[in-house]
Amino acid sequence: MTGNETAPNPSSELSHSRDSRLSRRRLFGLTSAGVALAGAGVAVGTAARSPSGSPSGDAATSAVAFHGEHQTGIITPAQDRVHFVALDVVTTDRTQVVDLLKTWTRAAERMTAGAEMTGIGALGGNPDAPPEDNGEALGLPPSQLTLTLGLGGSLFDGRFGLADRKPAALADLPHFQADMLDPARCGGDLCIQACANDPQVAVHAIRHLVRLGIGATAVRWSQLGFGRTSSTSTSQATPRNLFGFKDGTNNIKAEDSEALRQFVWVPQGEEPGWLAGGSYLVVRRISMRIERWDRTSLNEQEATIGRVKGSGAPLGKQGEFDVADFTLPGGDKGGPLIGDDAHIRLASAQANGEIRFLRRGYNFVDGTNGNGHLDAGLFFLAYMRDPQRQYVPVQRVLSRSDRMREYIDHTGSALFAIPPGVRPGGFWADTLFT
Amino acid sequence: MTGNETAPNPSSELSHSRDSRLSRRRLFGLTSAGVALAGAGVAVGTAARSPSGSPSGDAATSAVAFHGEHQTGIITPAQDRVHFVALDVVTTDRTQVVDLLKTWTRAAERMTAGAEMTGIGALGGNPDAPPEDNGEALGLPPSQLTLTLGLGGSLFDGRFGLADRKPAALADLPHFQADMLDPARCGGDLCIQACANDPQVAVHAIRHLVRLGIGATAVRWSQLGFGRTSSTSTSQATPRNLFGFKDGTNNIKAEDSEALRQFVWVPQGEEPGWLAGGSYLVVRRISMRIERWDRTSLNEQEATIGRVKGSGAPLGKQGEFDVADFTLPGGDKGGPLIGDDAHIRLASAQANGEIRFLRRGYNFVDGTNGNGHLDAGLFFLAYMRDPQRQYVPVQRVLSRSDRMREYIDHTGSALFAIPPGVRPGGFWADTLFT
Repeated sequence: MTGNETAPNPSSELSHSRDSRLSRRRLFGLTSAGVALAGAGVAVGTAARSPSGSPSGDAATSAVAFHGEHQTGIITPAQDRVHFVALDVVTTDRTQVVDLLKTWTRAAERMTAGAEMTGIGALGGNPDAPPEDNGEALGLPPSQLTLTLGLGGSLFDGRFGLADRKPAALADLPHFQADMLDPARCGGDLCIQACANDPQVAVHAIRHLVRLGIGATAVRWSQLGFGRTSSTSTSQATPRNLFGFKDGTNNIKAEDSEALRQFVWVPQGEEPGWLAGGSYLVVRRISMRIERWDRTSLNEQEATIGRVKGSGAPLGKQGEFDVADFTLPGGDKGGPLIGDDAHIRLASAQANGEIRFLRRGYNFVDGTNGNGHLDAGLFFLAYMRDPQRQYVPVQRVLSRSDRMREYIDHTGSALFAIPPGVRPGGFWADTLFT
Repeated sequence: MTGNETAPNPSSELSHSRDSRLSRRRLFGLTSAGVALAGAGVAVGTAARSPSGSPSGDAATSAVAFHGEHQTGIITPAQDRVHFVALDVVTTDRTQVVDLLKTWTRAAERMTAGAEMTGIGALGGNPDAPPEDNGEALGLPPSQLTLTLGLGGSLFDGRFGLADRKPAALADLPHFQADMLDPARCGGDLCIQACANDPQVAVHAIRHLVRLGIGATAVRWSQLGFGRTSSTSTSQATPRNLFGFKDGTNNIKAEDSEALRQFVWVPQGEEPGWLAGGSYLVVRRISMRIERWDRTSLNEQEATIGRVKGSGAPLGKQGEFDVADFTLPGGDKGGPLIGDDAHIRLASAQANGEIRFLRRGYNFVDGTNGNGHLDAGLFFLAYMRDPQRQYVPVQRVLSRSDRMREYIDHTGSALFAIPPGVRPGGFWADTLFT
């Protein structure tokens, strides 16, 4: 990793030409894919999607520009797959942390621009040395890869001279009723969210950054999400979670700049100043009690959610995007049709002082739960301006009263501050460290 | 699950019409997707693929015909994702097992034909009863879903009157040198392999079959594979494994009917007769020591595999599909260029009495290994006519001498007999149970 180029430099590869194998490497790097790279960094992935909401054709494989006011992977139209990693910092040397953040930034610039299409990282360089890049994504297009860095509260514990720069909103999440958290799936000094339409691209990106961190960071936990459960753009259809319901219908969308301003981005003038243009990320691994769910009736399922399973419409309404009417009668025991404990009522902006946040979750399945069923659920990722005033009060209510409680367990949890976007020449979290 | 229809029957849904929600369900089932289903069962997914080898457009979403001489999911062009489950049979009632196999077959016929496009299983029926299908794949096309059933040796232990029908070739795999098997990832009375181009479709299929098995079967272990590592058709490009190398270049391809006859299908006249047209499946979960691999030089990596990393060509050759010349000089200490311990030499047909088998593996990543790195590797799936004469001798050699040993651990293992294909009106393994 040489530092500050954003596209591979062919000449640096040629200088190592040595044998026939290397000649082929050079050929591979310069002709078959080198040209394609040139344009990849500027093609922003907002092109057409298929009616199902999955990206299709060039849109699915294009590059998302890395630099900007905000980090990508937040309001970027949600890609199909996620690989998420939480890391412990194992060095106590602040300089080493800063150097790693710079190295990671250069690597992120390269990978999101489609550097793997050239193979130079994997194949160039001295063949008697370890390749810079392992190359499992060699030849693959950027696939709308985004990489999003987060900083956990534990990073501000004093090891790196950051104690007085910790945001108040980064205080640990409280214990919520019925939390069943596995410490091995909680916390982390740092996190990286890799989203892409090709899982090999997302996995490669995380693996490569983890590798660059050896000696400074170690994997604390990681999670693969195989299918998105939220839309973050009006161009996307609403996907289904593993309960079989459309999820995220009322999510904040990238097109709603007023909602983004109000609920997602930390504004200028709010403390701490280094986080202006950033956000916070709440992570919850929500395991679903699938066997119990599968034994419930369709009516019970719809009453639990408050929506029609097929269309996704609020109960009593016709279309998915119709506004829910929480006053309609027709429920059990003379109550409202959308019951007092229905998920969409308790999670609604109306019931929470108009609080909202941007969800970006993924379905997961991780083998068996040891009880003869699959360990599956929803990997909840939500971005917001202040978790203490947005996620915490909503989750307090849900953890006490949500009818869905009977079918889920929160098994992992973490909270991260999300620094603002990287400017060309800058590095991740430079507003904090410089 | 009513038994013997292969496509949903709209009239059975209408009889439950009751309220406005159900009316919308009916609408959903009959108009938006019901028509599309009619043709899905006969559209076989062998259409065009993109240059990268990934299926594109209609080919990626089409249906693969379920019935035939052989089960699908073996020589079907390898789909992008796999969800694999191994199950224990928890009943001792043979009739219950047979009934489940029939129920599973009907469900497999429906799901592979695209029944989820109608939503009838999830939304039709009595709304006061649990839906037949949970519906998390509602509206999704079949995505080349294949479902492949296997029978483990333990199924023949006497519980079900099958002891005298156990194939000799289904004897337990021996312990191989350096096996690091986790019992929680080994064995199983039954297995189901779901392959599809959409992971949500593959996961849904397994989850639905697991649910149908409640009371008769329980999940023993399962594995999600996010990216295919083998081609099974000449129409597919060779993908890369997590070592960054092209994998499966010399794999048996669906187009090579002589190799399939010789190495994959159990022929008529071979014992046991019920397995004619079937095969065997060897499953190995191979964890990669990524951190160690990443510290090795490109030359060491290429010497370990015996191939050029970029092109995939055998060392000393130009093209991926060039035939390896194991006599070429130029290696360390005057040895051959492709060393005596190189993976492709030891695994080659030439070195193993011309033995081959059909590989169908997938990359996996399952969180962290607890040592600060990712738990990642290759989920090895291989189909063959006789594992004792094909996999066992090859793996004996590899486990002792393969230079790759230093970078991998075999952490899971299982062996299954794969019954022949299902005829219309028949059911999985009916040649064994009737």
